[in-house]
Amino acid sequence: MGAGDVVEPFREAGARLSALGLVRGSEGNLSAWDGRVLRITRTGSELSALGPGDILEGTLEAPPAGASSDLALHVELYRRRGPGAVAHAHPAGSVPRGWTEGEPHGRYAHAATLAAAVEELVGTPEIRAVSWEGDAVRILDQRVLPHREASLDCRTVPEVAEAIRTLAVRGAPAIGVAAAFGMTLAAATSTARNTNGLFRELNRAAELLKGTRPTAVNLGWAVDRMLAVAREHCCSLGSALPRVREAMVAEALAIEAEDRAACAAMGAHGAELVPDNANVLTHCNTGMLCTAGIGTALGVVVTAHRRGKRLHVWVDETRPVWQGARLTTWELRRLGVPMTLVADGAAGSLMAAGRVDLVVVGADRVAANGDVANKIGTYALAVLARHHGVPFYVVAPTSSVDPSTPTGADIRIEERDPAEVTAPLGFAVAEPGTPAANPAFDVTPAELVTALVTERGVVRRPSAAAIAEHLRGRRSA
Amino acid sequence: MGAGDVVEPFREAGARLSALGLVRGSEGNLSAWDGRVLRITRTGSELSALGPGDILEGTLEAPPAGASSDLALHVELYRRRGPGAVAHAHPAGSVPRGWTEGEPHGRYAHAATLAAAVEELVGTPEIRAVSWEGDAVRILDQRVLPHREASLDCRTVPEVAEAIRTLAVRGAPAIGVAAAFGMTLAAATSTARNTNGLFRELNRAAELLKGTRPTAVNLGWAVDRMLAVAREHCCSLGSALPRVREAMVAEALAIEAEDRAACAAMGAHGAELVPDNANVLTHCNTGMLCTAGIGTALGVVVTAHRRGKRLHVWVDETRPVWQGARLTTWELRRLGVPMTLVADGAAGSLMAAGRVDLVVVGADRVAANGDVANKIGTYALAVLARHHGVPFYVVAPTSSVDPSTPTGADIRIEERDPAEVTAPLGFAVAEPGTPAANPAFDVTPAELVTALVTERGVVRRPSAAAIAEHLRGRRSA
Repeated sequence: MGAGDVVEPFREAGARLSALGLVRGSEGNLSAWDGRVLRITRTGSELSALGPGDILEGTLEAPPAGASSDLALHVELYRRRGPGAVAHAHPAGSVPRGWTEGEPHGRYAHAATLAAAVEELVGTPEIRAVSWEGDAVRILDQRVLPHREASLDCRTVPEVAEAIRTLAVRGAPAIGVAAAFGMTLAAATSTARNTNGLFRELNRAAELLKGTRPTAVNLGWAVDRMLAVAREHCCSLGSALPRVREAMVAEALAIEAEDRAACAAMGAHGAELVPDNANVLTHCNTGMLCTAGIGTALGVVVTAHRRGKRLHVWVDETRPVWQGARLTTWELRRLGVPMTLVADGAAGSLMAAGRVDLVVVGADRVAANGDVANKIGTYALAVLARHHGVPFYVVAPTSSVDPSTPTGADIRIEERDPAEVTAPLGFAVAEPGTPAANPAFDVTPAELVTALVTERGVVRRPSAAAIAEHLRGRRSA
Repeated sequence: MGAGDVVEPFREAGARLSALGLVRGSEGNLSAWDGRVLRITRTGSELSALGPGDILEGTLEAPPAGASSDLALHVELYRRRGPGAVAHAHPAGSVPRGWTEGEPHGRYAHAATLAAAVEELVGTPEIRAVSWEGDAVRILDQRVLPHREASLDCRTVPEVAEAIRTLAVRGAPAIGVAAAFGMTLAAATSTARNTNGLFRELNRAAELLKGTRPTAVNLGWAVDRMLAVAREHCCSLGSALPRVREAMVAEALAIEAEDRAACAAMGAHGAELVPDNANVLTHCNTGMLCTAGIGTALGVVVTAHRRGKRLHVWVDETRPVWQGARLTTWELRRLGVPMTLVADGAAGSLMAAGRVDLVVVGADRVAANGDVANKIGTYALAVLARHHGVPFYVVAPTSSVDPSTPTGADIRIEERDPAEVTAPLGFAVAEPGTPAANPAFDVTPAELVTALVTERGVVRRPSAAAIAEHLRGRRSA
């Protein structure tokens, strides 16, 4: 192997991280370890233009002098995870205000190759909406964003259910992950003496969690998957409760990891659909706050942006709960993606003026025929997009596709508290007692959807047949 | 004339007032005076079923014993206005909370016949958005509705301009009336010694008032009409300033009276388009608060309701300023019209579910070709209505039609403070500094308008030719 062959992957990875805005100047560093030779960037190297002199060689036991100051971390990762490559970045805005104390700085990825490590960084969220803390489900409280960045540590299932019900955590995939962790908590905190007692508790927890948000299919999907794991391990291992609990923790973490990987894949597939210089219109929040990864629809936007596409996002404010105004703008500003917030009613005239090139939204549930339940107001965007010949893309993991729901007409639409309409922010804009309706979702028929993007790829003109074909081989619950 | 011929008009008028909900039980009373005989309802008569024994006869000088307790008022009206008929009603909810002190109770109409007096009552607003108080323009402050019913007495032109700019008074026709009174105020308070000085002041006032809201055509129309009257009287009367001022007061009151009459006529024409058992969707506020009469689009709804049609109104909340949530619900509740408030984004799915039979909106400006500028979000409703085969009606007086604006593309759209989007109710939903756009209006092309309703009638499929034909003979400024 010549020197060029060794340097080239570093040069490419460094250039790519720089182009994606994931490193600036001499921030960040790269290394590779083939089990024998350790190659690592020199301290102070500009990652945007690495040359042969920037790559130092040594071993884990005798690392090269002048290596990046983060050398120890690279070595530690190889010792724990084995040979491969490590990319380390700390992009602008990746460290939330008031969020850094005690956290390792920037972000790391260990993968088989430098290119794969870079891809993983692209797909890694800078914000974690939900995480498992061993004895608690930590939830970034979205009710107080963007004003405060505060976490809830839920230590009981009712606390998790309440966090889901009150929208402290929201977005179909994140709700699924939170519910999976909720089931983990039910198992972890159980004082049952035998499997019968444990199952009574798990079923109660499942019922409580499933009852919080009826439209999001991931919720029931994740809870059922957790129950199945509990059953499987009880059957095979008798009443070895600690092992059942362990298996449930592992399953919930797997659900989280799968969701994160799904986001990265959706981002990669969807980014292909975003033309350069695009004006993208989006509704609600579909980013890092609503998944375990970089998001669904917003993940597509962020990935396209990180791949160097010039774009601008029109952010619908998304009444009545303002997920667009509160959350999407917050994420996009942190990530440096150009955007403009507008009232929901402005979307139509933006399209009429030719100022929207594509609409990208998420989904709370996709029926077997491709009909899409999503945040109220989505359907109007789909009709407007059709009227103006603007492509309308839905981005959702296959876990949001529900084969047992034949069409959109079978989706139960959650009717939320009318006070969200009559008294936004707690301030009564209408007189007390004014009748109001507050459907939280609407259904967009498949024929208005240009393409459905999942972690498996792009389904153009979604139909029952196309979706069934797409789902074949999906991991069963 | 037989007794039946005399009683019949009373029976019909009484039955109609009752059916319209404008009187209940023995409230209200009717009279007629032909210049000789005074006929008036007996005190305690049920207006819903008047018979020969309920109608008493006398003269103005010797009124009949047992006549309605409001006899004196009827006599006074005949002495002031001459022969004709008087209807007196005080419908449920017509007396605003905290609004009655010092006001005569209920409402009166003097007209040529009882039937005409009843029609006038139907068209009379229970709420006055703007009124001329001799030394001030009184404005019902819509910024604090529905929480407080407070009035602003503007005594200077800048105060009127500020009230218009800050939406204390809003709605194209009401803005026109307020601006006309503002010009009256300019003339009334002028200390100019000669016509040159007066005109300098009037032109300054005109400029200030016209600059407040660029989209509403009535504003410029009313101001120009006031300037024209001032010029006319100066030319014909030299520098007789008091007479110029008098003429301007008269002209502003004429603009107000014409607007009120226009509302009644729009209500009558438009009500024909509302089927029985209709679900009507409306946007923004187009009622008594935005005209000098019963409103434009909402006037149509209220008239249909008063004519006994069963209907239910879907009220769009109308972000970002919530005119629907704050004002339309307030009016409809007072008038007893069944309605439900919804977020703007819900309109599409209501149509998809077949729950909207027609859309009725107002207009801030109608271009010569029938394109309509109206509150942001209107255009999306028009596209949705077309997609679902739902009729889309625009209701506006001919004073909102601007022959000098050829098409919608020529309408300048007011861009308001982005804080209305980023910080609704003063509460920052988005982080400070978040970029936002806030176009206050959008343009709906004529081809999406099923019919334009003005005080002159209904223009189906509005086009440049149809509108020109419709306008022919309009009172020139």
